[in-house]
Amino acid sequence: MIAAQVITIGDEILIGQIVDTNSAFISQKLDEAGIHVTRQITVGDSEKEIISAVDAAFKISNVIIVTGGLGPTKDDITKTTLAKYFDSALRLDDASYQNVVALFKSRGKEVSEANRKQAEVPENCTAILNKRGTAPGMWFERNSSVLVSLPGVPQEMKAMLEENVIPKLKTKFILPVIFHRNILTQGIGESALAVLIEEWENKLPQDIKLAYLPSTGVVRLRLSSLGESREEVKRRVESEVKRLKEIAGNFIYGYDEDTLEKIIGTLLLNKNKTICTAESCTGGYIAHRLTSVSGSSGYFLGSVVAYANEVKENFLNVPDSIIKKHGAVSEEVVKLMAENARNIFGADYSVACSGIAGPDGGTKEKPVGTVWIAIAALETIKTKLLQLGKGRMKVIEETNLNVLNMLRNELLM
Amino acid sequence: MIAAQVITIGDEILIGQIVDTNSAFISQKLDEAGIHVTRQITVGDSEKEIISAVDAAFKISNVIIVTGGLGPTKDDITKTTLAKYFDSALRLDDASYQNVVALFKSRGKEVSEANRKQAEVPENCTAILNKRGTAPGMWFERNSSVLVSLPGVPQEMKAMLEENVIPKLKTKFILPVIFHRNILTQGIGESALAVLIEEWENKLPQDIKLAYLPSTGVVRLRLSSLGESREEVKRRVESEVKRLKEIAGNFIYGYDEDTLEKIIGTLLLNKNKTICTAESCTGGYIAHRLTSVSGSSGYFLGSVVAYANEVKENFLNVPDSIIKKHGAVSEEVVKLMAENARNIFGADYSVACSGIAGPDGGTKEKPVGTVWIAIAALETIKTKLLQLGKGRMKVIEETNLNVLNMLRNELLM
Repeated sequence: MIAAQVITIGDEILIGQIVDTNSAFISQKLDEAGIHVTRQITVGDSEKEIISAVDAAFKISNVIIVTGGLGPTKDDITKTTLAKYFDSALRLDDASYQNVVALFKSRGKEVSEANRKQAEVPENCTAILNKRGTAPGMWFERNSSVLVSLPGVPQEMKAMLEENVIPKLKTKFILPVIFHRNILTQGIGESALAVLIEEWENKLPQDIKLAYLPSTGVVRLRLSSLGESREEVKRRVESEVKRLKEIAGNFIYGYDEDTLEKIIGTLLLNKNKTICTAESCTGGYIAHRLTSVSGSSGYFLGSVVAYANEVKENFLNVPDSIIKKHGAVSEEVVKLMAENARNIFGADYSVACSGIAGPDGGTKEKPVGTVWIAIAALETIKTKLLQLGKGRMKVIEETNLNVLNMLRNELLM
Repeated sequence: MIAAQVITIGDEILIGQIVDTNSAFISQKLDEAGIHVTRQITVGDSEKEIISAVDAAFKISNVIIVTGGLGPTKDDITKTTLAKYFDSALRLDDASYQNVVALFKSRGKEVSEANRKQAEVPENCTAILNKRGTAPGMWFERNSSVLVSLPGVPQEMKAMLEENVIPKLKTKFILPVIFHRNILTQGIGESALAVLIEEWENKLPQDIKLAYLPSTGVVRLRLSSLGESREEVKRRVESEVKRLKEIAGNFIYGYDEDTLEKIIGTLLLNKNKTICTAESCTGGYIAHRLTSVSGSSGYFLGSVVAYANEVKENFLNVPDSIIKKHGAVSEEVVKLMAENARNIFGADYSVACSGIAGPDGGTKEKPVGTVWIAIAALETIKTKLLQLGKGRMKVIEETNLNVLNMLRNELLM
């Protein structure tokens, strides 16, 4: 088994100012590649601390992934420390420098001396190009072990790890085949799901492991197994997924890296249909999620965020009398929002929601977390009442997931 | 200086299944108490790994906080491992046992043998009552150092740390006062900011430390100092903040836990003014950020997300001829979007943006990341051209920050 350590560098983590999410991401990717993480360590921006952690890690690890401390400022000392540790002078990495220059040029800025220095790496490492930022990564080898230093900025680190480091580790070491399948569910809580699939879970073969990974509004089930042949391991896991689908298929919306907004985007593009949203309590969040997908301008027309009742009236033709009679958070209002938005935007589908995100605004009849949602298509309008409980951002996120999953089901009809 | 280490125990963290948020919380509380965290370590549920981490920690730390592995199941081995390490038998802690019995009674359940065992602690530790759960904490002393073991369940751990552990550490050790001030900047990159404030930074007193904490679109500067009196330390840090404000004040939008959307909300409420948004490339994200603030219905009226050009025309009265002449991403169009949205919504202020979020849609004249933004008030319209480079979510986030900061400046006029 190939053993790894993840070392995160940053005073800001040690004083608890930021939560280290990089370690979890790196560990997950290493684990998926069949590399066993034995330790995660965070140390400060201190030469002594960094060297002590790296030195101890080399004694028991084949792979060491270091993040953080590669910025252009004085407190970023990871690179000079590693150069010292590996006893190496710095050289300008040409590809990285060209990348820095191009990056600054595209923003209409000059490259400063501090930026030029960012393209320098120790002579005895292989530079890893950072397409999303200025600091290159560094790949060092010592005896049969590898140390990789990556920037702490999550989006830069993630891209470099997935596109470069993991593939390179796979060629450097002989790794067991690990196969994971994530099954994504929405509309059922962790405990209820556990009861529903209990019998299936109890019958799982010993060498297939199940994990429950709940997050707001979504429970991810991960099945994992390892072996020598990918086809064989995959076949065994997939046959369990098939059985699970028969039991919990109603709640499963996708697998692995799927997201509801991407699934919906693909469905709309394939059907050549368009969509708009009319949002109250989500305040534009559903539109934001839908437009976070590259190419969404191919099917997303637009949105009205109708927070004030006058906006529901003026932009979405919801009569004031209806709002007065039933309240803004009602089936009648959300139906009209969806139906009228669809007509005004000239879209094939529209979604609407109106609810009480809180913390204020709840009543005995309509407590915080009460949300009406609607989907309008050519000849149908479907509605649903949600009770999502407290927590403003939780209500917004779960409303979004419920709306998108309802839309997905509609698009599959 | 009292040095501390945080040790988190759990296989689920090492495979990246969950993000370790406990370490950040514990570190923050220790730091606030004047205790210097030098390391955070995560190890698996393995006796060998736990003992190795604890043993190494005792060599350099006065305080060691351990979390995790105190549950009733087989894989929870922290307590037996610590009993072995401190060479101690287990005793039933009476207060903890009464607590377990009361907890189960309140849920109408019987206390099982496994639960009774949870109330056992090593003889040579002081038990720490867990009012929110079944596993007591453990306070060990060795020479002049302290090791505290707490459950991994965040709400149990947090309560025990704040109510019991921190007060007890304050009586056990003589601790200095630590003061942090975070200065939040927008509109300037880390490198440019470093150049701008270089002279000030070089003249900082030795005992005031500066850290750059960049994230998408925002660079946070943290000044930290320690001393004996909070007033004295605060005064010295604040006088440096004042000097920094004279140099970089244009880029500073807030301090510590401030966010642009909260600052704007407070400004609008105080002025009794309203706001709406007209968004293209941000797809509703600005509206989402503004409405993420509790009480935003007091000033946020609504939004039009005009992705398709027809929506710009039909909802925002932007003539097709203007779009054809100047392009949807142009000063002319974004001006009309802001001005017309303000009138149609009947808002005091409106913000608008139109740009190319990418990855497609860029041209030589208007590459990906080109964004026009506008702010309309009663008698003024201000516009700005941004070049944000590549990365769809980055373009969306940075557009949002630029718009909100421009709005903040307008509200301060």
